[in-house]
Formats: sequence, C-alpha cells, structure tokens
Amino acid sequence: MNILVTNDDGINSRGIYDLVVALREIGDVIVIAPLGEQSAVGHALTVSLPLRVTEFHKNGQFFGFAVSGTPADCVKLALRTFLEERGLARPDIVVSGINHGRNTAVNIIYSGTVSAATEATVLDVPAIAVSLTSYHPDADFGAAAEFMKRFTPHVARTGLPRGTLLNVNVPAVPAKQIRGVAYTRQGASYWEDEFEKRVDPQERPYYWLKGQYVLEDSAEDIDDIAIREQMISITPIHYDLTNYQFLKELRENWPDGREAFFE
Amino acid sequence: MNILVTNDDGINSRGIYDLVVALREIGDVIVIAPLGEQSAVGHALTVSLPLRVTEFHKNGQFFGFAVSGTPADCVKLALRTFLEERGLARPDIVVSGINHGRNTAVNIIYSGTVSAATEATVLDVPAIAVSLTSYHPDADFGAAAEFMKRFTPHVARTGLPRGTLLNVNVPAVPAKQIRGVAYTRQGASYWEDEFEKRVDPQERPYYWLKGQYVLEDSAEDIDDIAIREQMISITPIHYDLTNYQFLKELRENWPDGREAFFE
Repeated sequence: MNILVTNDDGINSRGIYDLVVALREIGDVIVIAPLGEQSAVGHALTVSLPLRVTEFHKNGQFFGFAVSGTPADCVKLALRTFLEERGLARPDIVVSGINHGRNTAVNIIYSGTVSAATEATVLDVPAIAVSLTSYHPDADFGAAAEFMKRFTPHVARTGLPRGTLLNVNVPAVPAKQIRGVAYTRQGASYWEDEFEKRVDPQERPYYWLKGQYVLEDSAEDIDDIAIREQMISITPIHYDLTNYQFLKELRENWPDGREAFFE
Repeated sequence: MNILVTNDDGINSRGIYDLVVALREIGDVIVIAPLGEQSAVGHALTVSLPLRVTEFHKNGQFFGFAVSGTPADCVKLALRTFLEERGLARPDIVVSGINHGRNTAVNIIYSGTVSAATEATVLDVPAIAVSLTSYHPDADFGAAAEFMKRFTPHVARTGLPRGTLLNVNVPAVPAKQIRGVAYTRQGASYWEDEFEKRVDPQERPYYWLKGQYVLEDSAEDIDDIAIREQMISITPIHYDLTNYQFLKELRENWPDGREAFFE
C-alpha cells in the first residue's frame, strides 16, 4: 500500500512523526508537508507565489519533502506533478495529521488538516484527516497512531465514495481507555471568540484573536459528544456545500424572472 | 438597512467599489476588507499574527476600513469586536464581493469571497457572496452591482435559514442580456491543473500552479450551466459538510468495537 502523508502543523511536528512511524509498519510512506506551521489556513492555495520543495531530514535520516506552502498546496503539488516527476508511486490513500488539537464542528472549515484531505478527494484519492483532541504540548499521540495503523488499511480496502473523506478525532486518553468508534455527524459546537485590543511599543493598536470553545451537548450523534464519551469520532465529510432543502424552497417560492431584479 | 461589505480582491479593487456605490443607494454601508489581494485563501483565519486596521480613502473620501488579514478575519473582527468598539451598528446583512472571477463548483472551497460570507453565517448574520464570471481586467461589474442593489433588500427581508448563505454568480454580459435567475446546486466542474517547473536566477527550481477550468455540462441544474445560459446563478450553501448518506452506510456496516482497531 502506498500512503501519502501530510499535515498542517508542519513537517517537524510530533504528530506527523508518530503517524509516519506507525504507517511505515504497514505500507510505503511518502511525506510531503508544509515547512512551517499552517494552522487555521483553511483550504488556501498559493497562486501568487511559487512553491519551493526541500528535502527534510530527521534524526539523521531522510524523512520527507518540505513545501513552502499550505496543506492543500502539498497535496495538489504531490498528486499533480511532484510524485510523477520523481518517479514515485501515486498513493492508494492520503492521510493528513496527526493534528495537535481537535477538528470538530465549525473547526472543520478552518482546518488545514481537513483541507489537505479534501484536496485529495478533489483529485480522486481516498483520504483520512486525523486529529488528537488536545492542545497540551506534551500530548501523547500514541493511541491515535496505533488506531491509524489499523484503520488506514481498512479504509483503503473498503474504499470511500468519490469526493468523501473521513474526519477522525481521537480522544486524548491512553489507548486502553478508548471505548470504541462512533460514526458521527459534524456538530454545532462553536467559538465564543473576540479580539483583544493591545498597543504595540510604537503606541499603535493591534487586535489578536482569542476564544473559548463552547461544546454543543444537545445531540448524541455528533463529533464532540463521541469524544467526551472517550470514543473515536469518525465523520464522513464532502465538499458539496449545497443546502438542498433550502434549494427546494428557493425554486418554489423565490422570484426568478429578470423583471424582478432589473429595470 | 445596515450592510457590511467585504471581499477577497482587496479594498482597492473595482468590484467592491462598484458594489458599495450601488448598495449606498439602498442602505448604510460599512466596508471592512483586506488591505491586499487574498484570492484562494479559503477560510483562513489569522491566529499567529495580530491584525491591524487602517482607514482607507478613495477619490479623496473615506471609503472603509482596511485589515491586514483574510476575508474571514475581516468579518470575524467586525462582528465580534470592531463595530461595537466604534459604536457602529451590527449589520442586517453581509455582502462579500463583487469577486473578479467565478466562484462555482470546486472553486467555492478555495474562495475567500465565499468564506467571508460563511463566517457571517457562523456568527448568525445572513450573507451573500457575489462574483462576476470574468477574469478580464476591464470586466464590467455594472450588471452585478445593479442586481445586488435589488436582490440584497429582498434577502434581508425574506431571511435565510441559520448557517446558510447565497452564493451568487453573475454572467459577464451587459444587464439587458441577462435572462433571469436560476436557483442552482454546486456543480462538479473542476480544474485540470498542474505545476509548471521553472528555474530561478540562482539556478534553483520552483513550481507555479497553472490550470484550465473544465466545465461540467452533464446536469442542467448546476451553477456553471446557468451562467452559460446567461442566467444569474444562486446556490444556497452551508457549512455542514457531513455526507449523511454515507454516514448511514458507516453506521450499518463498518466496525465500531475497540477490539477491531486495538490489541
């Protein structure tokens, strides 16, 4: 099995290292990941600047390719040009992570980890995004890496619908405390955020984002509640953003003649 | 009516200027938009850097507030902190655009224009993203601006479901050639893209994204086909990315016990 691994915390982060070590036990892994941290970049693509690729070493050994771009850049560059140019195999599956922090509910739309997996599905390669639900600097990626070692081959074998990826969130507890897997929908937890206004040494004001994550707990079948119950949350997501229910309403009741909107 | 206007082409672009001139005829408009171009930034948020706000003048008059961030930053900053701090009214509606180039099909996930409108819906304000389907430097935003002058009050009056925005694409033809409005779903047109490899003056390689947009034409009810028929395409989109159909399949047929994935 050929596996392409990327992330948004950067190629030198702990999460991607533990993931790669685990996946190398079950397949041929190629790493192509951002040189620096790219959290909350969403599905950004670099179009006004060129991309650079450098070889990245870790513990004295070649680890992977570092890209001067976003997670989506890494996947697009790899699948469209770079792998073929280097004579490397097209992957059977793309795995993005392990992200340091949860990617549930509204976080999904800001997430570089998820967007890398989305880009893979745009290019018709099955993909998994995986996150650990802890921001603690010493967080243990062990259980998440162990899970991915078994779950990745299952996904590659079973397949996914075209354009759909699996968004995996692993609770930050030791492996033996994980109770199982829950297939969930994207929840409605949200950020109660604001911008703190400060003044710089030149006496000029600036704003800095800060916030509290507010857990939705009114539904049992959502991502964040599964995690609270020490289950691994797996949400199938796709990039057809159409609200079909409201589309029906629009077609039935909203004006569509040009005379409604032009003189 | 209080209207907040933003975009991703930057506060000095022609599309936002024509939109603001049109909307000032029907409401009180506040502009808060990126200082520079932010195309293809997706739903990026600036978290590792502070944001600066400066007053931006055009034709010798105050035009709006320029932000050193992304379109989503602009909307979040405005709605969470900035408007209240300045004693400015919370908007009845957010309008993002007029983007210079179409935001249909897969482009929606890369679009800063759409993500600004999405951020408004995250914060419970109705929103419209509007784009002109031409990249030509001399493209005429007139028909799109005229349409928005009439469509914006209609949306504000009628309301939208929570978490849903309208993604409007206006064909690049004179107003009198527009045949009407089509309520559409997000299509499956895609980019046949690759990275061109070049060598810089220091003999180092770099990669630059380029591509051709390939029009899906197998379905009548999609965004790009409406535009081809000289209709204004309006697609209701939301940020619940769950693939509910596949979720059912996962719950019925995929393993969920911890013994399936842990020793």
